[in-house]
Amino acid sequence: MNLPGPINPPARLLMGPGPINADPRVLRAMSAQLVGQYDPAMTQYMNETMALYRQVFVTENQQTMLVDGTSRAGIEAAIVSLIQPGDRVLVPVFGRFGHLLKEIAQRCGAEVHTIETEWGQVFTEAQIDEALERVRPKLLAVVHGDTSTTVAQPLAGLRELCDKHGTLLYTDCTATLGGNEFLADEWGIDIATAGLQKCLGGPSGSAPITLSARAAALIESRKSIEEGIRDVGDPVSEHPVASNYFDLGMVMDYWSERRLNHHTEATTALYGARECARILLEEGLDGAIARHDLHGRAMLAGTTAMGLKPFGDLEHKMTNVLGVHIPAGVQGDKVRGEMLNDFGIEIGTSFGPLHGKIWRIGTMGYNARTDAVLTTLASLEQVLRRAGHSVTSGAAIDAAYGVYDEVSA
Amino acid sequence: MNLPGPINPPARLLMGPGPINADPRVLRAMSAQLVGQYDPAMTQYMNETMALYRQVFVTENQQTMLVDGTSRAGIEAAIVSLIQPGDRVLVPVFGRFGHLLKEIAQRCGAEVHTIETEWGQVFTEAQIDEALERVRPKLLAVVHGDTSTTVAQPLAGLRELCDKHGTLLYTDCTATLGGNEFLADEWGIDIATAGLQKCLGGPSGSAPITLSARAAALIESRKSIEEGIRDVGDPVSEHPVASNYFDLGMVMDYWSERRLNHHTEATTALYGARECARILLEEGLDGAIARHDLHGRAMLAGTTAMGLKPFGDLEHKMTNVLGVHIPAGVQGDKVRGEMLNDFGIEIGTSFGPLHGKIWRIGTMGYNARTDAVLTTLASLEQVLRRAGHSVTSGAAIDAAYGVYDEVSA
Repeated sequence: MNLPGPINPPARLLMGPGPINADPRVLRAMSAQLVGQYDPAMTQYMNETMALYRQVFVTENQQTMLVDGTSRAGIEAAIVSLIQPGDRVLVPVFGRFGHLLKEIAQRCGAEVHTIETEWGQVFTEAQIDEALERVRPKLLAVVHGDTSTTVAQPLAGLRELCDKHGTLLYTDCTATLGGNEFLADEWGIDIATAGLQKCLGGPSGSAPITLSARAAALIESRKSIEEGIRDVGDPVSEHPVASNYFDLGMVMDYWSERRLNHHTEATTALYGARECARILLEEGLDGAIARHDLHGRAMLAGTTAMGLKPFGDLEHKMTNVLGVHIPAGVQGDKVRGEMLNDFGIEIGTSFGPLHGKIWRIGTMGYNARTDAVLTTLASLEQVLRRAGHSVTSGAAIDAAYGVYDEVSA
Repeated sequence: MNLPGPINPPARLLMGPGPINADPRVLRAMSAQLVGQYDPAMTQYMNETMALYRQVFVTENQQTMLVDGTSRAGIEAAIVSLIQPGDRVLVPVFGRFGHLLKEIAQRCGAEVHTIETEWGQVFTEAQIDEALERVRPKLLAVVHGDTSTTVAQPLAGLRELCDKHGTLLYTDCTATLGGNEFLADEWGIDIATAGLQKCLGGPSGSAPITLSARAAALIESRKSIEEGIRDVGDPVSEHPVASNYFDLGMVMDYWSERRLNHHTEATTALYGARECARILLEEGLDGAIARHDLHGRAMLAGTTAMGLKPFGDLEHKMTNVLGVHIPAGVQGDKVRGEMLNDFGIEIGTSFGPLHGKIWRIGTMGYNARTDAVLTTLASLEQVLRRAGHSVTSGAAIDAAYGVYDEVSA
């Protein structure tokens, strides 16, 4: 039998919109041996993970845990657990992941209303207020930062708008958490979901989630206990969540002191998620956000000096990802191919209306580092030069140093 | 800020019904650095993983891949993708996981019919035939081996029964795959799903799945492409799968040469799943099954010699897990606690009607080894002795050696 060889990936510096390189500490944590799912060591790790992610989301929410799956699993768990068929949902769409929230809500049977804006822009509060007034949805589902467009929707004022209509507020902060300000409690978020593969510096496969007391109570009211493990007196809902795996009522029970069996926790992914949070909190949230801001500005300054025009509304640009227009006459995929195959550096392509027009360059998590920014700029300059794009030699590096020098001055 | 320390789990020998210790090779594979999700190295790993799991499932099915989540995620992906609300589903329930299949199908809106048998028993073909005749379901969903009861339902004859009614055949082989015979093509399985945490020797968090051409075509006919990445001419289904994350049509597209973006593949989990299959296939399926059979028989002989009565229909016992009655006068949880806390060995408790009555002892994956069996038996003898259970000193070990000696003789 002819079997492929062992896992032995090529060295890559992942400077796209994510996933990026995992922090080696996270990979080491994930290489630890397993313990049983009800081992005191495991339940302690689960409780610690809850406490760590409360700090990451800046929340007091008891119900703060992990969904076992990619960030998209967290999104679907939140939406399917909050809504019932026929519920009205409002989704402000400003990029690919707005479409995804719409699509998931539709599959859950919601009556979905959208407002749309051009990719690269965000909504004003007035636009969202108007739509809320018109739709009066049960749920406002909005992406925080949409990597497809590199901008982040301000969320701070939405709670007040939602409160006028008793609307629940869900957000996906996969792309922003840990590298941009995110304040679950202060912003009155009912559910926020994330992933590890952006600013948190881990691999995809675990979705941190936090639920407000109100969201938790609503979901609790729909809870059923599985027949195979149901005790006398356990609830049987008449309107159960349309998914078992994503029924957050059951996930909460599994993470509660009752430890009611649901899935078998993905222990290795939990080890990774826990270490991601530890690394972030050791640095401190403010420090990590400042670091993402710094390296994001250095990358912006460097690419601009190289003659690459930034994409989108820079006032609302995420710290950790930058879109740049592919210069006229340059084949975008050829440049990306040379960057990857010859320099070992990955930069990103784009989706939908931006496909073929924009490169996306990330500076996030473990890769929000000076050396990662400088080697990417130095390499990109050479690849662009060879692609026939006129570049002033060294301008990008000098501009990036300019940003770094401001801080150290 | 007071942060918990690094992941540093206690040494445990996990001899319960799973998860068990991961093979250290799997953990090493999972500690490899990430590559981008469309990196040629990554897509090659994906293709190799498909080819490896075709061999594991013993199938020619093109559509053989991973669902990103625990084994329960694979189950839900299969069921939600196959059925539409109102479809009739038949579930033969012979343990906890039969209840789970019922529950998942109900949440998907199916009209679910069940037949039940006592925990520890399996169904005859005639019983299943009678139920198929009566219900004429679109889908027969049956667990292969149910760890809650330690027995495996024979599947070889079900295709013929299903063909009389055009019924699809789904099975969950999480608990059996790699340690018990499983022949997806020969048995005419339409979809089979699994997990890594049993005989495959990996951590929970990735669900291998294989789909027959018929199942794939059915799911393909319901496929929609997400609006954020939809091209002109791409399908928009009128009856889309009720989940985005678990829409196997989209998962198939992601694993196809088109590489249409869906979730962000959980790279570390994929590294692990790939290594699990490599380890299994290096040994050979027949060798691995024989090894599970051998150590399962040694554990059965040893516990029986210790005076522990085995549970369930031994003719249909899975190779890799054994139920034993907790002796009268012995506190089951106290024994399990001493085994875990003092000897570092985990054995399992039970669910539902067996709770408090049965221990479940596994010999699977990396832990289907002579030393694991012998240390478990030697330790259990001591713990039982101290719990006041009369044990003939050494009888268990001698009986286990007896089984091993037969093979080496």
